[in-house]
Amino acid sequence: MSTAARTKSLSVPTTMKAWVLDDPEQLRLVEKPVPAPGPAEVLLRIDAVAICGTDVDVITKGLPAWIEGGLPFNKNYTPGHEYMGTVVTLGAGVDEFGVGDRVAVEIHAGCGRCERCRMGMYTSCLNYGLNYGEKNKGHRANGFTTDGGFAEYAVNHINTLAHVPDEMSDEEATLIVTAGTAMYGLDALGGLVAGESLVVTGPGPIGLMSVAVGKALGAQPVILTGTRKSRLDIGLKLGADYTINVREENAVEAVRRITKGKGVHYVMECSGAPDSLNEAMDMVNRGGRICLAAFPGEPALVDLAKLVRNNIYVYGIRGEGQSATHRAAALMAQKRFNAKLIHTHTFPLEELPTAFRYFRERIEDAIKVVVKVH
Amino acid sequence: MSTAARTKSLSVPTTMKAWVLDDPEQLRLVEKPVPAPGPAEVLLRIDAVAICGTDVDVITKGLPAWIEGGLPFNKNYTPGHEYMGTVVTLGAGVDEFGVGDRVAVEIHAGCGRCERCRMGMYTSCLNYGLNYGEKNKGHRANGFTTDGGFAEYAVNHINTLAHVPDEMSDEEATLIVTAGTAMYGLDALGGLVAGESLVVTGPGPIGLMSVAVGKALGAQPVILTGTRKSRLDIGLKLGADYTINVREENAVEAVRRITKGKGVHYVMECSGAPDSLNEAMDMVNRGGRICLAAFPGEPALVDLAKLVRNNIYVYGIRGEGQSATHRAAALMAQKRFNAKLIHTHTFPLEELPTAFRYFRERIEDAIKVVVKVH
Amino acid sequence: MSTAARTKSLSVPTTMKAWVLDDPEQLRLVEKPVPAPGPAEVLLRIDAVAICGTDVDVITKGLPAWIEGGLPFNKNYTPGHEYMGTVVTLGAGVDEFGVGDRVAVEIHAGCGRCERCRMGMYTSCLNYGLNYGEKNKGHRANGFTTDGGFAEYAVNHINTLAHVPDEMSDEEATLIVTAGTAMYGLDALGGLVAGESLVVTGPGPIGLMSVAVGKALGAQPVILTGTRKSRLDIGLKLGADYTINVREENAVEAVRRITKGKGVHYVMECSGAPDSLNEAMDMVNRGGRICLAAFPGEPALVDLAKLVRNNIYVYGIRGEGQSATHRAAALMAQKRFNAKLIHTHTFPLEELPTAFRYFRERIEDAIKVVVKVH
Amino acid sequence: MSTAARTKSLSVPTTMKAWVLDDPEQLRLVEKPVPAPGPAEVLLRIDAVAICGTDVDVITKGLPAWIEGGLPFNKNYTPGHEYMGTVVTLGAGVDEFGVGDRVAVEIHAGCGRCERCRMGMYTSCLNYGLNYGEKNKGHRANGFTTDGGFAEYAVNHINTLAHVPDEMSDEEATLIVTAGTAMYGLDALGGLVAGESLVVTGPGPIGLMSVAVGKALGAQPVILTGTRKSRLDIGLKLGADYTINVREENAVEAVRRITKGKGVHYVMECSGAPDSLNEAMDMVNRGGRICLAAFPGEPALVDLAKLVRNNIYVYGIRGEGQSATHRAAALMAQKRFNAKLIHTHTFPLEELPTAFRYFRERIEDAIKVVVKVH
Repeated sequence: MSTAARTKSLSVPTTMKAWVLDDPEQLRLVEKPVPAPGPAEVLLRIDAVAICGTDVDVITKGLPAWIEGGLPFNKNYTPGHEYMGTVVTLGAGVDEFGVGDRVAVEIHAGCGRCERCRMGMYTSCLNYGLNYGEKNKGHRANGFTTDGGFAEYAVNHINTLAHVPDEMSDEEATLIVTAGTAMYGLDALGGLVAGESLVVTGPGPIGLMSVAVGKALGAQPVILTGTRKSRLDIGLKLGADYTINVREENAVEAVRRITKGKGVHYVMECSGAPDSLNEAMDMVNRGGRICLAAFPGEPALVDLAKLVRNNIYVYGIRGEGQSATHRAAALMAQKRFNAKLIHTHTFPLEELPTAFRYFRERIEDAIKVVVKVH
Repeated sequence: MSTAARTKSLSVPTTMKAWVLDDPEQLRLVEKPVPAPGPAEVLLRIDAVAICGTDVDVITKGLPAWIEGGLPFNKNYTPGHEYMGTVVTLGAGVDEFGVGDRVAVEIHAGCGRCERCRMGMYTSCLNYGLNYGEKNKGHRANGFTTDGGFAEYAVNHINTLAHVPDEMSDEEATLIVTAGTAMYGLDALGGLVAGESLVVTGPGPIGLMSVAVGKALGAQPVILTGTRKSRLDIGLKLGADYTINVREENAVEAVRRITKGKGVHYVMECSGAPDSLNEAMDMVNRGGRICLAAFPGEPALVDLAKLVRNNIYVYGIRGEGQSATHRAAALMAQKRFNAKLIHTHTFPLEELPTAFRYFRERIEDAIKVVVKVH
Repeated sequence: MSTAARTKSLSVPTTMKAWVLDDPEQLRLVEKPVPAPGPAEVLLRIDAVAICGTDVDVITKGLPAWIEGGLPFNKNYTPGHEYMGTVVTLGAGVDEFGVGDRVAVEIHAGCGRCERCRMGMYTSCLNYGLNYGEKNKGHRANGFTTDGGFAEYAVNHINTLAHVPDEMSDEEATLIVTAGTAMYGLDALGGLVAGESLVVTGPGPIGLMSVAVGKALGAQPVILTGTRKSRLDIGLKLGADYTINVREENAVEAVRRITKGKGVHYVMECSGAPDSLNEAMDMVNRGGRICLAAFPGEPALVDLAKLVRNNIYVYGIRGEGQSATHRAAALMAQKRFNAKLIHTHTFPLEELPTAFRYFRERIEDAIKVVVKVH
Repeated sequence: MSTAARTKSLSVPTTMKAWVLDDPEQLRLVEKPVPAPGPAEVLLRIDAVAICGTDVDVITKGLPAWIEGGLPFNKNYTPGHEYMGTVVTLGAGVDEFGVGDRVAVEIHAGCGRCERCRMGMYTSCLNYGLNYGEKNKGHRANGFTTDGGFAEYAVNHINTLAHVPDEMSDEEATLIVTAGTAMYGLDALGGLVAGESLVVTGPGPIGLMSVAVGKALGAQPVILTGTRKSRLDIGLKLGADYTINVREENAVEAVRRITKGKGVHYVMECSGAPDSLNEAMDMVNRGGRICLAAFPGEPALVDLAKLVRNNIYVYGIRGEGQSATHRAAALMAQKRFNAKLIHTHTFPLEELPTAFRYFRERIEDAIKVVVKVH
């Protein structure tokens, strides 16, 4: 909190390097104007940004949000949503953050005027995507419906910022929002997980962070399922009590064995596998709860009668609502788990396509690939 | 509350008429001993009992509970769970009810010793069906795993009883538990439905009671979907603001039209139709909630990604937990809706097979068929 | 929804009549500029405004909000917060309401950027009162910290508006926010009150609306306590099952008698009487809940150990959060109770001081005194 | 889990040593029959039992429960409620625990038949104390209304048992129920405390466990207030980020200073000090929540208007409901904090009066004084 903190702005250029997406798969590095923050917003210098599976969807297929909203494909839009950086300019009326503050971001800034935002459900904003033209309702989902983090600078609403402590690296801080999604999922499941049994299906970044956050909050046992030993082993280091390699044994049977036939209280479904909900229903006990945090690629045959018969609740979660990111950030600041275990590679901004290739092809067992911008 | 109320027991015979189920479809009327109530239980003289779709499942297929629990098919068991009657004998320590009290019943008396019962989720009892032999945990689900109401007498735990006011007929009182299921579904959806929009899919008894209870609590608009005009018309009388005949128009489009494109807050799915969850997901808005109260006959293709993308929660509900039956009974006692509209036929106990035939074949537009026992 | 509805603005003058408060007790009628709505705001032509006890506090003592925030007493401020009117101008980006719409108002528009607003608790905004100068956070509480309704026009955030149906009179619509406070209190108590017992202490406007809303949601019995027979009689018409005149009998004993010694589930404390919390603790049963909706004038001796011993929760509520006003408005639109019973007098805007005198001195048993503006 | 685990009972004598209470302050060591467990109960050999402040109240004044219920003072009753032991006999139908299992206990086994028990609120049982005579409803609160742990054996309902891991000492296990009360208090406050600010007032056993559990769940900062440096220092070791010695500075001012004027989200009031609720109201921010876990000795002057103005909720908690003890036990089994820090002295059963003297007079800074029985 040096000189910077006492000024209203660090020196900021007028243009910046940014990747933009044209048609699907067409990313270009361009020079773009640096945006200016409005009231309740700040300008961030982006220090690091991680690649998420959803980024791959966006880049290869275009965004569901655009399609649903009937928007034309945005020709000059910058993706990237898992970023962190340094506050360099304060919008009008902002004193909640200071210039020089290091912050990680949530994706969603709700419109603040629809029913869902009014009740605190800002990731379910009913004006999703409406942030332009005559119908501008002020919603932002940076990296999805507004410019994101594969660039040198970005504008963020202050509601989306979480402080990053000095001793946390830029790379680790990009993982806060992932841990926030895991926390939000555990919130949906009831939040009081100490001593309760939890299965996490799928050892991707959200699954691994679900293991870490679940164990940090005291869940017992935490059981992780997956197909690759290397990732399951990281799960063990993050707090899993048991791992199940579904190539070697039936996940439902293994869960029943571990829990002595009782089944578990909660399942965090992070695999997106076609049969995942059916399996989850067979893993939980009567009255159990399941959170769906991954997008299955296509419709699946589901035995819905089992939900009714066993009084099971299923929670689809979008994003990282309910300020869960702040709570996850607090656990990371307190070093309750080592999120860095899932960070495997780093590339400079110019090499974003290579970074994506590592992520998509899982080269060298890549999990979280981070792009270091500043 | 005459002389009876001041005694501990009305005169009760030692044997009674009761229907028992042998193999599927084999109902027999027999003479059985009248059971005796234990501590915290009462003996009821059954005055009336309604037929439910689940009774048909039980009689034609045997019980899922038995099958799951690995029980042999019970050769001397009495089905029937939607009944009401008069307290005739008090078990040891009972002063919560008096001899002569008219009561309706909930189905489930949890074991009181498993985790779910301990937290109040007695319809999700983990000792479901364990009420016999060395592992007797005391669970009861009368008409399912313990003797039910197609008989002259039955034993009930006091937790399962709700007072019936003098001015309510026996026939109407058999519908209290159905309204209780509807109330429990609305509880799951959050309970605060005044001024919120609600779709009920399927105008069976639970669907129609969901319309009635939802409107009694102030939901607006209440939209009912179904295939038969006669039932949709009853829905209008029970409080539906709109009905949609799905043979004439697409239900999702109609809901979108009625709500001016916004979708609804809540869906109570009471049809069990194969595509019902997909349609419900298209009816609710972002952040909406869906209760599944009907058992789909077979697995359905479900676009689970939509649950995630739109932050939708899905609540399977078993039975009528959380004392919802008491709350529903209170609304009926206050005449907030006319449940009698769904009662269409009455038969004496001896004619149970005829009553079932009317119900199964929907003869004369039968909805609720009641068997009058005393 | 005539021509007006299709334009963006009705004809609006540049100045208006408005009452402003200087020093305590110094209300003046002045000519003031008509304000202009910003984004997400509308300009309302005020049609009617009711007087609330808090208005009296404001006018006689100045506002706690100001004092807490250290603000200088505002020399040109317009009080009045229970108003309704007609939308005459839409701010930028507003299409949620149309010109010509009749609306009632909630008081609070949170800042949308503090933790409480972020979680949906906008009446507990942490930037309460900060709506001016360099620290403008955008909070509004019209009639308290921003200009209110004793005037011809006012600006409102769209989050604070609830539609008023054509068939509801202006006078009745001013009572929506009062019913909203009652609803918010019942929300705090858990919301699922059908068949549950409820005591309302104090038959002022909020108390009487608590009776009405509680009974509309099915509470049974509803017991109202107070000192004046005329008001208790209105309570009976609004749905109270019992009234207790505390001048004639001890309220706690009467509640115990009515409930056969059990006590009640819930108390809505609307009297502000010094001993009210102690009495409420003696009225509820173990595990019961109490909502404090009235401001006691001075500290009271409270037997806090009873809260601990009996696991009692106490909810202080500010305003009418959680969109409760919308839900209350829906019940009123559905004519679930006759709010007009508490409206006793009407005066034109010019006669505000007389209106206040009637309210303060309870002339002719005045309860709700309404000022008709247009 | 040796031979014992395979039998239904370890060898148990017919009589045992037990302390009984006659008139206040009259504890006698007697020989009493060993009780027999009923259905859903076990007989425990008591291994260790800790002294709690409530035990002192019971022994010096007699029990509020008795007085409220109008019971005669029990001449042959054994107090003591914070105990742990080994299962030695299983009641009929018990297979949830095995002979030889080490367990800690919750105090309350609700009746299982009142409204509160039915909804999971077993520590608020409406049949509190009714476990004898004609009105036997089966409620137990061992050490309060049924025989407790200052004896060689005791009967416990299986709902009150939590497994103790092999590596946890008997002495530490007696603290599980204290941590359970702290957990229950945090549950009442909402449970999602990671990254939220928490003040704990009063460094007695419940206060210190509130610090430990709060920090284990990620609360930040955790601030402990008290009068004695030695206890505040233990608080630091258990996870407090700040301590405030109220003899040296004003607690409210210190909290405001530490939180940079914001106040905290939550206060756990564990001091029972007369002004504690007023101070807590000044410590929390708008919308904050306060849990009362200590019994103030006498009524206090409370500024209730502040609860209303700031939308503050106050939760009195009785005991350790909602299975919080299981969750606390899980955190202790996972060694999330070192509860042993508050255990200071150990005495054999015969020296109970000396143990009480150490506890009451805080000899050698006694905090938790444990009586080792076997």
